[in-house]
Amino acid sequence: MSDNRKDTGVSNKMWGGRFAEGPSAIMREINASIPFDKALWRQDITASRAHAAMLAAQGIITEEDAATIDGGLDRIAEEYERDGVPEDWDLEDIHMTTEARLGALVGPAAGRLHTARSRNDQVATDFRMWVRDAIDQAIAGLHALQHALVARAEEHADSIMPGFTHLQTAQPVTLGHHLLAYYEMIARDVSRFSDARVRMNESPLGSAALAGTGFPIDRDATASALGFDRPTANSLDAVSDRDFALDYLMAASQCALHLSRLAEEMIIWASQPFGFIRMPDTLSTGSSIMPQKKNPDAAELVRGHAGRVIGCTTALMITMKGLPLAYSKDMQDDKPPVFEAASLLGLSIAAMTGMVADSTFNTDRMRQAAELGYATATDLADWLVREADIPFREAHHITGAAVKLAEQRGVALDQLSLDDLTEIDSRIGERVFDALSVDASVASRASYGGTAPEQVRAQVKRAKARLAEKD
Amino acid sequence: MSDNRKDTGVSNKMWGGRFAEGPSAIMREINASIPFDKALWRQDITASRAHAAMLAAQGIITEEDAATIDGGLDRIAEEYERDGVPEDWDLEDIHMTTEARLGALVGPAAGRLHTARSRNDQVATDFRMWVRDAIDQAIAGLHALQHALVARAEEHADSIMPGFTHLQTAQPVTLGHHLLAYYEMIARDVSRFSDARVRMNESPLGSAALAGTGFPIDRDATASALGFDRPTANSLDAVSDRDFALDYLMAASQCALHLSRLAEEMIIWASQPFGFIRMPDTLSTGSSIMPQKKNPDAAELVRGHAGRVIGCTTALMITMKGLPLAYSKDMQDDKPPVFEAASLLGLSIAAMTGMVADSTFNTDRMRQAAELGYATATDLADWLVREADIPFREAHHITGAAVKLAEQRGVALDQLSLDDLTEIDSRIGERVFDALSVDASVASRASYGGTAPEQVRAQVKRAKARLAEKD
Amino acid sequence: MSDNRKDTGVSNKMWGGRFAEGPSAIMREINASIPFDKALWRQDITASRAHAAMLAAQGIITEEDAATIDGGLDRIAEEYERDGVPEDWDLEDIHMTTEARLGALVGPAAGRLHTARSRNDQVATDFRMWVRDAIDQAIAGLHALQHALVARAEEHADSIMPGFTHLQTAQPVTLGHHLLAYYEMIARDVSRFSDARVRMNESPLGSAALAGTGFPIDRDATASALGFDRPTANSLDAVSDRDFALDYLMAASQCALHLSRLAEEMIIWASQPFGFIRMPDTLSTGSSIMPQKKNPDAAELVRGHAGRVIGCTTALMITMKGLPLAYSKDMQDDKPPVFEAASLLGLSIAAMTGMVADSTFNTDRMRQAAELGYATATDLADWLVREADIPFREAHHITGAAVKLAEQRGVALDQLSLDDLTEIDSRIGERVFDALSVDASVASRASYGGTAPEQVRAQVKRAKARLAEKD
Amino acid sequence: MSDNRKDTGVSNKMWGGRFAEGPSAIMREINASIPFDKALWRQDITASRAHAAMLAAQGIITEEDAATIDGGLDRIAEEYERDGVPEDWDLEDIHMTTEARLGALVGPAAGRLHTARSRNDQVATDFRMWVRDAIDQAIAGLHALQHALVARAEEHADSIMPGFTHLQTAQPVTLGHHLLAYYEMIARDVSRFSDARVRMNESPLGSAALAGTGFPIDRDATASALGFDRPTANSLDAVSDRDFALDYLMAASQCALHLSRLAEEMIIWASQPFGFIRMPDTLSTGSSIMPQKKNPDAAELVRGHAGRVIGCTTALMITMKGLPLAYSKDMQDDKPPVFEAASLLGLSIAAMTGMVADSTFNTDRMRQAAELGYATATDLADWLVREADIPFREAHHITGAAVKLAEQRGVALDQLSLDDLTEIDSRIGERVFDALSVDASVASRASYGGTAPEQVRAQVKRAKARLAEKD
Repeated sequence: MSDNRKDTGVSNKMWGGRFAEGPSAIMREINASIPFDKALWRQDITASRAHAAMLAAQGIITEEDAATIDGGLDRIAEEYERDGVPEDWDLEDIHMTTEARLGALVGPAAGRLHTARSRNDQVATDFRMWVRDAIDQAIAGLHALQHALVARAEEHADSIMPGFTHLQTAQPVTLGHHLLAYYEMIARDVSRFSDARVRMNESPLGSAALAGTGFPIDRDATASALGFDRPTANSLDAVSDRDFALDYLMAASQCALHLSRLAEEMIIWASQPFGFIRMPDTLSTGSSIMPQKKNPDAAELVRGHAGRVIGCTTALMITMKGLPLAYSKDMQDDKPPVFEAASLLGLSIAAMTGMVADSTFNTDRMRQAAELGYATATDLADWLVREADIPFREAHHITGAAVKLAEQRGVALDQLSLDDLTEIDSRIGERVFDALSVDASVASRASYGGTAPEQVRAQVKRAKARLAEKD
Repeated sequence: MSDNRKDTGVSNKMWGGRFAEGPSAIMREINASIPFDKALWRQDITASRAHAAMLAAQGIITEEDAATIDGGLDRIAEEYERDGVPEDWDLEDIHMTTEARLGALVGPAAGRLHTARSRNDQVATDFRMWVRDAIDQAIAGLHALQHALVARAEEHADSIMPGFTHLQTAQPVTLGHHLLAYYEMIARDVSRFSDARVRMNESPLGSAALAGTGFPIDRDATASALGFDRPTANSLDAVSDRDFALDYLMAASQCALHLSRLAEEMIIWASQPFGFIRMPDTLSTGSSIMPQKKNPDAAELVRGHAGRVIGCTTALMITMKGLPLAYSKDMQDDKPPVFEAASLLGLSIAAMTGMVADSTFNTDRMRQAAELGYATATDLADWLVREADIPFREAHHITGAAVKLAEQRGVALDQLSLDDLTEIDSRIGERVFDALSVDASVASRASYGGTAPEQVRAQVKRAKARLAEKD
Repeated sequence: MSDNRKDTGVSNKMWGGRFAEGPSAIMREINASIPFDKALWRQDITASRAHAAMLAAQGIITEEDAATIDGGLDRIAEEYERDGVPEDWDLEDIHMTTEARLGALVGPAAGRLHTARSRNDQVATDFRMWVRDAIDQAIAGLHALQHALVARAEEHADSIMPGFTHLQTAQPVTLGHHLLAYYEMIARDVSRFSDARVRMNESPLGSAALAGTGFPIDRDATASALGFDRPTANSLDAVSDRDFALDYLMAASQCALHLSRLAEEMIIWASQPFGFIRMPDTLSTGSSIMPQKKNPDAAELVRGHAGRVIGCTTALMITMKGLPLAYSKDMQDDKPPVFEAASLLGLSIAAMTGMVADSTFNTDRMRQAAELGYATATDLADWLVREADIPFREAHHITGAAVKLAEQRGVALDQLSLDDLTEIDSRIGERVFDALSVDASVASRASYGGTAPEQVRAQVKRAKARLAEKD
Repeated sequence: MSDNRKDTGVSNKMWGGRFAEGPSAIMREINASIPFDKALWRQDITASRAHAAMLAAQGIITEEDAATIDGGLDRIAEEYERDGVPEDWDLEDIHMTTEARLGALVGPAAGRLHTARSRNDQVATDFRMWVRDAIDQAIAGLHALQHALVARAEEHADSIMPGFTHLQTAQPVTLGHHLLAYYEMIARDVSRFSDARVRMNESPLGSAALAGTGFPIDRDATASALGFDRPTANSLDAVSDRDFALDYLMAASQCALHLSRLAEEMIIWASQPFGFIRMPDTLSTGSSIMPQKKNPDAAELVRGHAGRVIGCTTALMITMKGLPLAYSKDMQDDKPPVFEAASLLGLSIAAMTGMVADSTFNTDRMRQAAELGYATATDLADWLVREADIPFREAHHITGAAVKLAEQRGVALDQLSLDDLTEIDSRIGERVFDALSVDASVASRASYGGTAPEQVRAQVKRAKARLAEKD
């Protein structure tokens, strides 16, 4: 390949540094995907084996050639496993790297492996299989996180904490209830990954460059051998489509958002003024001179990673925008965002699982915050309406006065005396104390899905049953 | 509510223009969601009716009150339908607007409607119902687009066009095959919206502010009355969750990306050098002095809208990042992106349906481009290998020479004479012409999902059957 | 314009609802920008006047026509001001709306206004002027916010609070110092908006459709009349460029991020466990039954708006990606994101200015948190190294023991007695107490830009001087 | 550091694969930034040297210690240069890696280097310096691209091509004019990077952890030694701020968008139906059997990279959203997006420079497309109005008829005979041909910045003068 660039004198002085050789050095670097797509090596070899076996079964290549190819691929897999994949930029990508090595190992038979397929359907197949594996790993990780959440929720089905809205103390809830809210979020994440898996599980192999092939291939056979539910229906779509990568990234983004919320809460809870939680030493960094200080590094990184995972999703959406069919080289930029997101998400899930499983909850502090936050003020107002038949507005007024008094004294609402209360309004009776304690408050909220310990335990039971199905 | 701002002299000069009144004017404007959330009015009234009926059935309010409330809501619905929803910023949102009107119409009973629910579960319920409707509309629109694609694909199952990779002519394909690639993309979009619908179809109603309620409500009853599959399992999650909105936006984003690709292709095809397509007059703008010019405005707007739809998705992801439980006011920013994306997507789907249904394909131009692009060069090389038993590399060399000759003459490959070809290589025989025509080329690619007309017709048949199930 | 759609029977059943009329109804809706671009009416009229005056000065139109046009535009401005801009979708945009009205008012002269310009340079000019105004408004708003920050910083130059890293109490700082950090961020925002203004301040007018014009126009004259520094240098670039809109959006995004950080801090500070701040009643919502609860709605909305402003930026970046020159209709999607971001940003700046100016800081609570957070532990360790010549590691060990003791007693470090301390290590002397108090700690950090009150006051002085230049 | 995780039995089965050791293995991996921040090694060593020199000059450490430290750092730089930076995850980051190595090399003096600084100001300083270098590299690369654009523009100041709007042939322009539009875009990119450089060029060193330091440091000295214009004004802001990274990413995003537009145009121009351009062999991939086919890989990768660069920008914006002051570990996620964007942008600029410098423009094909696209139809209409005094509407009608006739004959407008034209309208005279040719058309558009060759040459002259200032 010659360089037909005219010697205008322009370009001579233009290149320096790493591109001193001029455009061909740039092309070599911008075009090489081997630095990242070597991650696909297992999928590439598996798919090649299935393809070779099918070609032989259909009589397109000889059984002998197929066996030779299979043996060569076997050996390459061993080499890669042992030594890593060599990064020769001139061989551009994992497909050519393996193809060249196969040629060196087994000779002319290697060339026949490429019959009735093209790099376009090959990369589409390999990458789908990689993403499918990433989905399976995400689901396994989320399953562990759910187990941790349910275990801690059961442990704290009765532990009282302030329930916040706007980060203002609103009503008392149980810690178990709060943790189960995350169980639900993660369950939706699992559902989203599962949906993505079902939708993507079709084999592009045999779509060739874009138009299909004239060889009498059996696409059902390769699809089945590679664990796909069926071959893709349209060869042009099969090589142009990266929906499966976006589905993965979108599920990863929502999951990362959920984890960022949990991380934020834990960071706030671990602050000195809150003091609700003590993070595990393994997932925070301490200070020898400030033993009370523990930097929640892992939680902060999880929160930060949400930004990067979403950035990856944005990147691929933009790259795919307005691309004409069929394959365009822009689509080589599909892999780095997916690989990066998968790595960040895997770490984030693992870190939050450790945080949930191993944090120490300071339940005394939590209960105290609920009490001094006057989280049962609404319960008092409700009691006045329901039991003392006081109109809503008046009940609010009375409640406000009681909270103000408790605040002045620095005590919880149920630590006011009956005298204190009757002085505010004579219609208040002894039985009001049944409503004023944080325990009474949470116990009363026994509607389905509510925060009452009995409800929390019922949720735990249902969650355990669902998890058991998957174990 | 008084303003306890200290008169430091700082703030007096600070406010001007629309905020001349100071902070309370700012708060009034930043806090008011009625300008956009009035779009929820139907869902709000429907949900309130279901709630009132349940309260009465459970004996929490009287049947009489329930009937009064129902009548009042009926009348409000009529008013809104006729006059629009009034936009009084002091009433903040659609919920308070309706509540205030109900109070004015039916008196004290109105207050009882709010028993055992809160604005937090109310807005979560209304918005879910709105998104569910938006999903149903998107699916209906996509269904129409699929019908259009399949009809045009059937019409053009034999029409030859260049198949591009890298926007370079690669191999001939049929226009029908190309259009069916979009049928597949849209089918995935439908599948994605359907999955989102299943996942979100749970009723938050009865979760109250965050902790559930002490009233003996029947959440299954309201869930069922509102078409939900079941109540949500955790009240804290129910008021904190906006996954359903993100699921919608993500499905919309992928759909908008698919439409942007089709739009890009049509814009390129409509350019004078391509001339593959004549856009419908209704969806383009013409020029009285340049009759050959038709600006593809609708397609360009569809392509541009992809940016905005993705922007909406990004917006909500960022807004949700790191939010502690339960409800935070940030979440009021969930609706504008969803409403905007739904409007843009609806228009985009409709516009592309019109473009597909009503564009005129210049099939002569398409065929000619395939021929002069020498799209069958690979077919010639394959023939030389297969039929004349010429080694691969040599076959490539011969093919290159033939293409160069045809290019010099400005003719298609199959318009070269046998003499021309045998002069290049004497092993070429008469039967080579079976491989050289674009028709022969597409006919040969008959692997499953390939571009051969028989395959395209089979795809059309399967697609029609699937669509018929939904009609 | 006729609809040449073939009656294939496909389209008849396809359209329903708002598009019952078929593609022409879709086109009407997707194409109309008047619902949003009417916001440009002032700029459009101003630019038209400058254009007409130049045309007359150059002898391209008569002075009489110019006067007629000017009078007509004057009247239209009055009409728009009084009645709003009419929204007739058939007139598509603000330019055609005004043009049509001018024709109705002044007859044939109206047509001459369009000499030597096109809609492409007209919209580019109008929109630039609008963005320039938005920049000026943002800068004015930020200026007010800086004034508020500096005033409160001066007031609290000595107020001690915990300085956090990782939201863990690290070292004591002064509230004034903390507020001035935001002053610096906002100063960079102002600088960014100013840079954008300088870069964009070139006039596209006279670029015509894309190629310039054959009329002997004077682009310098219109540029100067409209407050631009010069005409744009290349007509193709001038109609294809939306950098100025992106520059605005990017500056807005960074500003929104800064505000989101301040909002987050105020939300956390307003929580009951922190209790550092009491938000102004005007910018929060209270509860009649929970007087201690104040929902920080305005701050939460500011934090949420950051998501939407960034979403707007993302949207326009995506829309502009890969657009060939010159004007494409996709670029009509430039305005909604800019208009939305400008509105959200204006509100956010105003709201945060109010929050800063009018919040009540609970300085006792802040000081107490600094003391009980043992924020001076590093000061103790430093003292041991410096004054008692104890090796670093040993000093850390001693400090840890002292903090643990203080923690057990629930007192600040400097509330331990000398006996307590000498029991831990006998080398500790009386003068250690100079280092242990939070006041001593902040006073010591007097490096340039540090937290010492003297430094804070010096920063205030410099800031005031800079602000005074702009007043 | 011990793991105080309770042995609940939950966690034992939770960890597998790479995290078999449990949370500490996760923490080790999520916390380690050395795999990417080793890129900062030069900046880290340079900053440490400046810091040591200042400490000695201020008498905070001895001159002897300073010399020892300097010698050690010198040796470490040699080691890193020769062997690369060792990646020991237990040493977390580049700062601790170098610190540990320094300790091993020079003993106790190494510990004194950390006097009066903290990791927070150290990383802020190093990263700023890295970004500053990246800006300088970007500007140098863009400078080369501008040279290439101007050289090719000068070469093609008279070459006619169709000017497109909506990718429809609109009016003839010159290729030189078109290329200079990109010169302008790139000039804005340079201006944006320059502004960012000015704004960020302040030294955070000496801000210590967040509050400044009690040591008598000289921040002006280190600022000056490291090429900064001044020290940052507020220590809290200095360690919390990542505006400089966002400024860089935003400038990079806009630049990537410009390059994506040029890439898109070149890809379309290189398609067979257009045939406007032949890409350099070095920056495209060919096919031995299809010599007419050249895949524009480099251009496609540049277009695709725009997505990833914008994704990086989005990522960091999201990560920074809502972060409380001062340093949070989330901010460790600032570097990967910046490093990735810088690498992608550097390659993209170089690739487009090569494309511009070395592509072969098929000017015959371009001229022919302008002629057959009837790009001078507006010139004809203008002539009829101006010279034959025919009303606008009638002139349009006549022009439409002429274009239709030329289209039927397959000729350019100026290839119609005078008889042909007078038959359409008798008022047309011989002199019309002055307006009909594409050359006449472009020559006439001589307004400032217009497409006339004289204007293009004037633009080239101005551009060359500006570039010469920078050489």
